[in-house]
Amino acid sequence: MLRVEWAAREMPVLKLLRERFERERPLEGLRIAACLHVTTETANLALALQAGGAQVALCASNPLSTQDEAAAALVEAGIPTFAIKGEDTDTYYRHINLALDQKPHITMDDGADLVSTLHRDRQELLAGIIGGTEETTTGVIRLTAMAAAGALRYPVIAVNDADTKHLFDNRYGTGQSTLDGITRATNVLWAGKRVVVIGYGWCGRGVAQRARGMGSQVIVVEINAVRALEAAMEGFQVMPLLDASAVGDIFITLTGNLHALDQVHMDAMRDGVIIANSGHFNVEINLEALAAMTEHHRTIRPMVEEHTLEDGRRLYVLAEGRLINLAAAEGHPSSVMDMSFANQVLSAAYIAHEGKNLENRVHPVPTEMDQEVGKLKLSAMGIQIDSLTAEQQHYLSSWDMGT
Amino acid sequence: MLRVEWAAREMPVLKLLRERFERERPLEGLRIAACLHVTTETANLALALQAGGAQVALCASNPLSTQDEAAAALVEAGIPTFAIKGEDTDTYYRHINLALDQKPHITMDDGADLVSTLHRDRQELLAGIIGGTEETTTGVIRLTAMAAAGALRYPVIAVNDADTKHLFDNRYGTGQSTLDGITRATNVLWAGKRVVVIGYGWCGRGVAQRARGMGSQVIVVEINAVRALEAAMEGFQVMPLLDASAVGDIFITLTGNLHALDQVHMDAMRDGVIIANSGHFNVEINLEALAAMTEHHRTIRPMVEEHTLEDGRRLYVLAEGRLINLAAAEGHPSSVMDMSFANQVLSAAYIAHEGKNLENRVHPVPTEMDQEVGKLKLSAMGIQIDSLTAEQQHYLSSWDMGT
Amino acid sequence: MLRVEWAAREMPVLKLLRERFERERPLEGLRIAACLHVTTETANLALALQAGGAQVALCASNPLSTQDEAAAALVEAGIPTFAIKGEDTDTYYRHINLALDQKPHITMDDGADLVSTLHRDRQELLAGIIGGTEETTTGVIRLTAMAAAGALRYPVIAVNDADTKHLFDNRYGTGQSTLDGITRATNVLWAGKRVVVIGYGWCGRGVAQRARGMGSQVIVVEINAVRALEAAMEGFQVMPLLDASAVGDIFITLTGNLHALDQVHMDAMRDGVIIANSGHFNVEINLEALAAMTEHHRTIRPMVEEHTLEDGRRLYVLAEGRLINLAAAEGHPSSVMDMSFANQVLSAAYIAHEGKNLENRVHPVPTEMDQEVGKLKLSAMGIQIDSLTAEQQHYLSSWDMGT
Amino acid sequence: MLRVEWAAREMPVLKLLRERFERERPLEGLRIAACLHVTTETANLALALQAGGAQVALCASNPLSTQDEAAAALVEAGIPTFAIKGEDTDTYYRHINLALDQKPHITMDDGADLVSTLHRDRQELLAGIIGGTEETTTGVIRLTAMAAAGALRYPVIAVNDADTKHLFDNRYGTGQSTLDGITRATNVLWAGKRVVVIGYGWCGRGVAQRARGMGSQVIVVEINAVRALEAAMEGFQVMPLLDASAVGDIFITLTGNLHALDQVHMDAMRDGVIIANSGHFNVEINLEALAAMTEHHRTIRPMVEEHTLEDGRRLYVLAEGRLINLAAAEGHPSSVMDMSFANQVLSAAYIAHEGKNLENRVHPVPTEMDQEVGKLKLSAMGIQIDSLTAEQQHYLSSWDMGT
Repeated sequence: MLRVEWAAREMPVLKLLRERFERERPLEGLRIAACLHVTTETANLALALQAGGAQVALCASNPLSTQDEAAAALVEAGIPTFAIKGEDTDTYYRHINLALDQKPHITMDDGADLVSTLHRDRQELLAGIIGGTEETTTGVIRLTAMAAAGALRYPVIAVNDADTKHLFDNRYGTGQSTLDGITRATNVLWAGKRVVVIGYGWCGRGVAQRARGMGSQVIVVEINAVRALEAAMEGFQVMPLLDASAVGDIFITLTGNLHALDQVHMDAMRDGVIIANSGHFNVEINLEALAAMTEHHRTIRPMVEEHTLEDGRRLYVLAEGRLINLAAAEGHPSSVMDMSFANQVLSAAYIAHEGKNLENRVHPVPTEMDQEVGKLKLSAMGIQIDSLTAEQQHYLSSWDMGT
Repeated sequence: MLRVEWAAREMPVLKLLRERFERERPLEGLRIAACLHVTTETANLALALQAGGAQVALCASNPLSTQDEAAAALVEAGIPTFAIKGEDTDTYYRHINLALDQKPHITMDDGADLVSTLHRDRQELLAGIIGGTEETTTGVIRLTAMAAAGALRYPVIAVNDADTKHLFDNRYGTGQSTLDGITRATNVLWAGKRVVVIGYGWCGRGVAQRARGMGSQVIVVEINAVRALEAAMEGFQVMPLLDASAVGDIFITLTGNLHALDQVHMDAMRDGVIIANSGHFNVEINLEALAAMTEHHRTIRPMVEEHTLEDGRRLYVLAEGRLINLAAAEGHPSSVMDMSFANQVLSAAYIAHEGKNLENRVHPVPTEMDQEVGKLKLSAMGIQIDSLTAEQQHYLSSWDMGT
Repeated sequence: MLRVEWAAREMPVLKLLRERFERERPLEGLRIAACLHVTTETANLALALQAGGAQVALCASNPLSTQDEAAAALVEAGIPTFAIKGEDTDTYYRHINLALDQKPHITMDDGADLVSTLHRDRQELLAGIIGGTEETTTGVIRLTAMAAAGALRYPVIAVNDADTKHLFDNRYGTGQSTLDGITRATNVLWAGKRVVVIGYGWCGRGVAQRARGMGSQVIVVEINAVRALEAAMEGFQVMPLLDASAVGDIFITLTGNLHALDQVHMDAMRDGVIIANSGHFNVEINLEALAAMTEHHRTIRPMVEEHTLEDGRRLYVLAEGRLINLAAAEGHPSSVMDMSFANQVLSAAYIAHEGKNLENRVHPVPTEMDQEVGKLKLSAMGIQIDSLTAEQQHYLSSWDMGT
Repeated sequence: MLRVEWAAREMPVLKLLRERFERERPLEGLRIAACLHVTTETANLALALQAGGAQVALCASNPLSTQDEAAAALVEAGIPTFAIKGEDTDTYYRHINLALDQKPHITMDDGADLVSTLHRDRQELLAGIIGGTEETTTGVIRLTAMAAAGALRYPVIAVNDADTKHLFDNRYGTGQSTLDGITRATNVLWAGKRVVVIGYGWCGRGVAQRARGMGSQVIVVEINAVRALEAAMEGFQVMPLLDASAVGDIFITLTGNLHALDQVHMDAMRDGVIIANSGHFNVEINLEALAAMTEHHRTIRPMVEEHTLEDGRRLYVLAEGRLINLAAAEGHPSSVMDMSFANQVLSAAYIAHEGKNLENRVHPVPTEMDQEVGKLKLSAMGIQIDSLTAEQQHYLSSWDMGT
């Protein structure tokens, strides 16, 4: 399909790995169940896994993020894909189970719904699994909690924690595409707007940086003291969300947590504000509380719900609180998914080879793999860098040369 | 002294800890030998340690960085201080040995010259030592090499690696003060200049960010692929130093490594360029090679050496390649040293209490200590932040709530 | 219509003026022919003019920029609107003539096609015209040339040159929406891309600033020495377009001139580059030359034409070289059109009142009108500012108080 | 002198003009009285005028800004220079009169003290004057008021209003050097500080941009609605000074007006704030009111006055409210003075040639002169730019090519 081809154009690292996989077939005979956003970039990932010898089955990791034409292209390429944009929760879980029906050796997850469904409802499949990978901060948090509770039954590679993933995908990918989603949904001018960024992890940093880059006045809300200090030192205003609620024009949640934006905050907001979520799950905004507060409700533009409260104030919630970059735009640009998915395919190959030797916990991506992805990407961008001289390597490993 | 008082005004966290130490006396009866830049901020650190019950002796960690009036103020306060601005290498090491003559229980280091001198020349003192702290990236690299070689004979806390240290001191402190030093030395306009930042660690990031903030066109040189990619994604030009040498106006080394800027690079530079170092040791620029290339030499402004080469090109080296922010300006602003030194005094108290139980290697600053420094600083800046609700804490530790 | 209402929400100044016009009817009995981009914002402008007593007829100022639903909403509101998205050149001019058939007293133009058609083909209408307004830099350049040649037969207010228009609309409006259009058309990641901005007027500044804000490495091309210097001092790379052609990833023209991007430049470009225009007319890219160079041609995504050249290089031209923000996105955000159109309605009222006394040339927007728009906008944004004290006003008008 | 030579190194345009003047002697036989900041850059200006054939006499335009070694170097070069750093007001005016005693044909002014003294006290000299030049916004405001009152008795060229002057000197020069002055005086960390910029003209923009570039949270205070809107759209906080007074850490005045920062504002400030002026005259801060509010007073660092008020709050005023960049740092970097002074020498030559034909009012720098300075500067920076093709020039002057 043309759109998948267009995405491929910006995914040179994945293309290179796909060519290598075609020669080396590191996934020969393995079945992979992948629960990911079904986009043109994911299509390229699935094709690379397939080229490596795997049988891949795909389901959506979010009910709103599926690009139906990407799904169609995958099916055409012989990859079963269970996903329809806008599917309801029942269908969502049915699709996950259909993917699991393939009896996977490897799971590939984006938010850990596949892993948790498997551990909860499909324990008969656990014996066949070698290992898994996880794409998101949210998923890594969940899996770490599972491992801590002794509940995780196979090793998972935290692809999210690779430097070439979270420093780029979470920061530059989420940063750009969150603003893109809100712009497409609303066509607001960013310049001069007071934008409240809730959560200053790598995603929040990206959004704060891009909103400033568009001329907004950015206010950061954060619960971690060191991160809050960093935000302040970057020149952002930092304050509790309740204070920010009284002045903000646009609110964006990226916390990975429940009800980051709660009733008390919505009570304090001004007429006409815009509220969006860019965290993985649609739990960050307390939509139940908002529903209870709402007197009238209408869809004023696609993806824009107007909630008129009893006191006449109107709050505009985007995409029903689902992650805005996938719901209202096209998700992360291909160029950044290139690196994330390069880590995915290398991690899949690593599990195929080493999974039997790994403990049942969350493992980091090996450093050399991380550096390799970085080098391939630089080279694809036409950028060359220096390396250490022998003299310099010696200097770094010595401790007796001082002032 | 008024200047020490002025610095104290911007060091509210250290002031608070000093008051706590006066009450709790956690360092009662301990001798501390500290090898640090002898500045007004360090004076406040020494007074806090003294307030905690310690006997402190101070020597300089760099021959050019001593503020003589700070040294005088310390002596007046009863703290032996062995440091004179511009001292030669012999005097430098004699001063280190004078500080060691105090038979310290704790060493406090900035670059590891104290630790390495002690291990090499004063092994008789090792038995009395409980532990040490180290302030810099350079020192941590040296100490880690020592530990790896089995040569480190007591535990050292890597104060440098505390988030509230390196994310702030290295980035915002070095960033601002490096430009400040170069501005004071040269009075150049930064806007429109091509600034080559060699090394994109935390210090290099700070300098690149500030140079851009002053209107410069920034070129980054880096050997680590992931860091190089980050620099490119931040919109900086990234290239090998040899290419950058042909176009740069101002060159700044921050690598912690030997001869980062070497003869081959100076051969390629244009007439009139400015060269400075902001790494810990004066080894980053190959000054011996430059001396051999130089036909005429004169000091055209204080801290500015003009090297006229055989082909007529003039290269301007600042502060003889010593770290420019301390040599030509006043070092890091007090506000940022406040956090670094809060980590120092808390680490000293930690060693006093726990040092006997620690292995002879490099240890991180405990996370709670790091968060405590962050909280105190935020509060001193008049910034309040939110904390997690019970519901949110529960959510983060659970793994069974999904889409 | 909901979308027109949504736009109105971000146009508080226009709303206020519409209410004033309803009371004061300053345009009572006048016919206005307006040739503008037919968007939801323009719909609000037309409704305000109608509220002031005018009979308005609308036609499109660009064949690709019409939002068909906005046109439908206008017709429903009793405003004849001649515009269909994607109309061909014949239809385009037929529509202009249909608007002129209304025998306007006032013309409202965006690029001066209405004025030039009227002077060339419909001279019988000139006698009835009191005056006109012009929205764009391009139009003001054309009208100034007409006036210089003695060809302009009625006075025109250069709305474009109001500070509250070009400092905002051209800079922040074009800046944001140009990137938005390219993002929607291509979904490229901006971070790390080399973006070549051709033309550093107010539009070009906006685009350069926003591209930097998105993490791009920006290269500016400009023919005016002072503007080129400003770009350099802002830290942008500045070079001739031929040099930039060899390194750029994305090229954007905003010059108001013919063939700013010509065959010689396309000859020098690398495989895979993206080319877009954000100037008023589709003449800035030499598309005829490109067509002659192209061996294969296909539409790879909507608005993205792939040109494969004989040597195998592929160039991607967006929206057939038409202004990208209107063709591929929604044009300027309402918030910025609010100010431009506030100037339009005030200028229309000014012509109604003063037009008979104005010479047949291009006139500036009166300063007080400009400040009034500024004050209304600030107030709508909830921003208060200070004013001069009597003492200060006196000081500014005196010359005898010195050192 | 070495420092004058160092400045010359960054003033390539002035150097080129000096060489041209040596050949062409456009100022042969003319006497010039110049009232300017006596710095190493001004020394280079005076030498260029001398090379053109003029007899130059110099006096200081500010009691605190004189660099005594620059004055000494000028005297040595045969240019009478009446200026001592820290001179009192009587001496200041005596020095102005000594410069006037040279019976100038041309006056060169920086703030209009020379012109106003001459018109008030030395009217006998008016007959001999051909014309003058003025360097600053403040001076142009004063001279325009004089001309409006019919009091100006000879033509003056507003060098300040040349694009190559105010867009660079006021913005990049004042921006950088104001922060530099405050840093040298206080060594504060800019990151995280709330910086209140009072006045958003070209100087204020420069300071706001640089403070943001250093990581500060910037608040803009402005009385002009359009400028205030621009500041808001750039993402700055905009508010009345009284509101800003309650939250700011550092206050900087750049208004050209009296008591921009008044008692009511100082009443509202928090303990420990820093106050500086970077406008031309020391009238922008109401120091008389502050003196009346002050209970204790001491100099805590050079250039830093601590005012302890009755309620215990301490306000720190820098450099007695004189323009901070010249008082505490070295004034504008040479590179930017290069352009301002290139305009000065070209304007002096223009007056020599054309002054007799000019009306007694304030005149702009001719556009071609402005572009010439721009081109020379670009070329000195090694930057090449494009020029219009014949086809493009034709297009711009035509009005009949449309859509």
